[in-house]
Amino acid sequence: MTLTGHSLIAGQQVAGEGKTAAGFNPATNEQLEPAYTLITEEQLKTATSAADEAYASFSALDPETHAGFLEAIADNIEAIGEELIIRAGQETGLPAARLQGERARTTGQLRLFAKVVRQGDFRGVRIDPALPERAPLPRADIRQRQIPLGPVAVFGASNFPLAFSTAGGDTASALAAGCPVVFKAHNAHPGTSELVGQAIAKAVKDNGLHPGVFSLIYGPGSSIGQALVADPAIKAVGFTGSQAAGIALMRTAAARAEPIPVYAEMSSLNPVFVFPGALNGDVDALAQQYVAAVTGSSGQLCTSPGLLFAPAGEAGDKLAAAVGRAVSACAGQTMLTEGIAASWNSGAEALGSADNVSLVGQGTEGATKNAPAPAIFRTEISNFVSNHVLHAEIFGAASLVIRYSTTEELLEAISRLEGQLTATLQLTAADYPTAAPLIPALEQKVGRIIVNGWPTGVEVGHAMVHGGPFPATSDSRTTSVGTLAINRFLRPVAYQNLPQELLPVPLHDANPWQLNRRINGTVVEAAEEKEEVNA
Amino acid sequence: MTLTGHSLIAGQQVAGEGKTAAGFNPATNEQLEPAYTLITEEQLKTATSAADEAYASFSALDPETHAGFLEAIADNIEAIGEELIIRAGQETGLPAARLQGERARTTGQLRLFAKVVRQGDFRGVRIDPALPERAPLPRADIRQRQIPLGPVAVFGASNFPLAFSTAGGDTASALAAGCPVVFKAHNAHPGTSELVGQAIAKAVKDNGLHPGVFSLIYGPGSSIGQALVADPAIKAVGFTGSQAAGIALMRTAAARAEPIPVYAEMSSLNPVFVFPGALNGDVDALAQQYVAAVTGSSGQLCTSPGLLFAPAGEAGDKLAAAVGRAVSACAGQTMLTEGIAASWNSGAEALGSADNVSLVGQGTEGATKNAPAPAIFRTEISNFVSNHVLHAEIFGAASLVIRYSTTEELLEAISRLEGQLTATLQLTAADYPTAAPLIPALEQKVGRIIVNGWPTGVEVGHAMVHGGPFPATSDSRTTSVGTLAINRFLRPVAYQNLPQELLPVPLHDANPWQLNRRINGTVVEAAEEKEEVNA
Repeated sequence: MTLTGHSLIAGQQVAGEGKTAAGFNPATNEQLEPAYTLITEEQLKTATSAADEAYASFSALDPETHAGFLEAIADNIEAIGEELIIRAGQETGLPAARLQGERARTTGQLRLFAKVVRQGDFRGVRIDPALPERAPLPRADIRQRQIPLGPVAVFGASNFPLAFSTAGGDTASALAAGCPVVFKAHNAHPGTSELVGQAIAKAVKDNGLHPGVFSLIYGPGSSIGQALVADPAIKAVGFTGSQAAGIALMRTAAARAEPIPVYAEMSSLNPVFVFPGALNGDVDALAQQYVAAVTGSSGQLCTSPGLLFAPAGEAGDKLAAAVGRAVSACAGQTMLTEGIAASWNSGAEALGSADNVSLVGQGTEGATKNAPAPAIFRTEISNFVSNHVLHAEIFGAASLVIRYSTTEELLEAISRLEGQLTATLQLTAADYPTAAPLIPALEQKVGRIIVNGWPTGVEVGHAMVHGGPFPATSDSRTTSVGTLAINRFLRPVAYQNLPQELLPVPLHDANPWQLNRRINGTVVEAAEEKEEVNA
Repeated sequence: MTLTGHSLIAGQQVAGEGKTAAGFNPATNEQLEPAYTLITEEQLKTATSAADEAYASFSALDPETHAGFLEAIADNIEAIGEELIIRAGQETGLPAARLQGERARTTGQLRLFAKVVRQGDFRGVRIDPALPERAPLPRADIRQRQIPLGPVAVFGASNFPLAFSTAGGDTASALAAGCPVVFKAHNAHPGTSELVGQAIAKAVKDNGLHPGVFSLIYGPGSSIGQALVADPAIKAVGFTGSQAAGIALMRTAAARAEPIPVYAEMSSLNPVFVFPGALNGDVDALAQQYVAAVTGSSGQLCTSPGLLFAPAGEAGDKLAAAVGRAVSACAGQTMLTEGIAASWNSGAEALGSADNVSLVGQGTEGATKNAPAPAIFRTEISNFVSNHVLHAEIFGAASLVIRYSTTEELLEAISRLEGQLTATLQLTAADYPTAAPLIPALEQKVGRIIVNGWPTGVEVGHAMVHGGPFPATSDSRTTSVGTLAINRFLRPVAYQNLPQELLPVPLHDANPWQLNRRINGTVVEAAEEKEEVNA
């Protein structure tokens, strides 16, 4: 595919009338061609207006066409072939194997959402049939369904150029809900974004959809992002990135004449709690797994463990020593951008120079640019509880080992934590009684609890929650990964006493889309409903 | 029951250390005894701390105890007997029949939520079993459930002293979700609030629950309300009232260190669209039904129709004349407070003196105090579209008849509307083709569409949506009436690879609560799941 260096608005290449911005290869700090033209706020309107226009037909699409469209996007992404992996590698410094896995995840979640669209439970149909004989007052026929919110603004994340970017989880779930998407590319991987954007635009065209269903825009820094969120046509926002940027979008959305929901996934320390029983096993293996989770993808994962709570005493000392050895053997990997590497350096320096914090071990710098040496630090739990500086996320391969003596200390530390995406427990059956009281405490702080695994490698399924209380996300009631993510872009509407001719299709008596529907409060499967009607 | 004139915090009478406030009989403007002592912000902390403490045990309650508690509240409210109807009548000026109906609605929705708690679908259990053999990577066992958000602040509404107040829809749905409630009484009906508050406190005690599950507080004006929403222990807010007050709470909630959701139901014009076919029937009956919806409960309903779009031409003229006759025959009914009556007067005066607005008809003042004469005005649709003043809600018995000629005019007018709770169509089969394009336009603006009925009289069921886009509510994704309201107070948590010993009960393999659970993406009924396991 040819990279044009322009935005792709409602199926048209649009040269931005602002400045230009180019991607850089972080392994070499060399600029990548082409430079991308940045659109103005005036030009942005063409994308949001087109999305607004596309809503009527796209939101009413039949399930089969709708699902086929999502599958076509997945097919088109695969059809790009190696070019996508190469370009993404150049723009992010991420290794090919990681990017191949990320591509599989991206196409996999598009196909999973196609299944969700066909299955149809997300439409949330509820029917309370009329009760004309009810006393003292008859009941009207009332039916409910979930409708798509409207055009959604999605922001690409720097750390997942595919799975949390142009056709990533936010885009996939918004499109699955029936919402047109205006996608703001992350300026760190503009070429990757364009390749995937072309794949989506082709699917829109080939399926005969309104071109406004998808636009890909390149804009200057945060200003065009703020303008996008402020645009009256936009009805919801999906974002993965820093806390500062996420909070800025939340403020803009809340200050609108019509406030809109922002789904921002922002920051997390992902604490790991090691219980004594876990130290009776292979401590070296445990240390290596932890270090792998800290350093994988250069630590640039939302779920990298930034805290490890380890028991005081001899067994815990052994674990700390093993962690030190494991991290010392690690070479740095290229980070996503020069800016992110610089930010990691200052964060790690601040942590290392904090009171009562010392180094457990540090690896070596990588051979490429922007590949700082992974570092793991240590402190006592009393210090962690009292020093808020130690609660700051360091984006990249750094972590803090915290030594504790009692469950009460752990509960106190948990109570001081801000909201997190995950918490992990390493334990054996002997530790269950000690660990049990931590579960309800952790439920108040995180979106996912893991036992004897690691938080990285977020499964895309029906039961996944990639979310959590603020500031891990802007909205703890949601997840940005997994099929439940579709619920973020829906709202209920009730229809009272409408004739069949005016009812939306999912609510028709004949149930032509074969939906499972909640009738008088109980879900009735489509097949079963038909039997009841025919009986 | 004896009215104490004090707050009821975690089961204890607490005399407020601030000023006092008393209820007034709006029919006579006489003060009612006792005066209520108002708590300070310091005293507020005892309520929010108790709610915070109560969360752990209340959120984990077994369904049977939980449901029994909700039913006990309903029983205790009924046990108050006539005293409740008399006191509520004195404090609100509402007639006994209306209050009896409201009481039945209040106890009915508590019992409906008890059924929801026993049935358990709101727990949203999802199970993706482990796939140890999956390639390239095995899948861990991942389970999800919805947990209660935490303590909820609920604000009493002036216009529903029972159904949207102490034990109203917000309290019932929050308690059903497993959230302790701190209830801020509306100072217009403090005695009614205390009677119901005592009924709830008795149910808490009799069921052996933590006393912090419910507190009823009296506080000065909005200041204690703002302090309540700002309190870190509070995790969500339920409110029904004015747009100004609702927006103030939204701002406070968004400015917290941890922002929390606010569910505010604020204002709505509830437009009614009359199509030509409907004028071929009994026009007098149509006019009388409309006037009854406008003037019922002195027009102080969230869903009172504030706009009636009627065709231009002779048939529409007949309708307008009939509306004029019907409203002229109406006597005013006492409004809730002297302040609300004064506000109605200035609103009606502003509407009546707006450019190109004239009176269709006006009734007579009522015999009691604060019973202004219901008034219905008229204007042309071009005037409505261009003059934003005509879009202001007038809380009380006033409405505006708008004459239109074409569907295009209606679509234009709909596009200019702010978010609304409801829209109503009056039509016959001959009007379906004309009305059809309005449905998708109205879906973008309202939470409920009604055909050949009236928006007042909101059914409490599974399919009801009492919600809508801002500023009708603060969150279009929700409803404050009906069983879906419980979802407002829940958030998902995922559990990855947890042993049975550490899993919450709803996720146990044995499914002891007999929940319908979504397994691998498909809901499996409890009975069916057992068969599968035993097969």
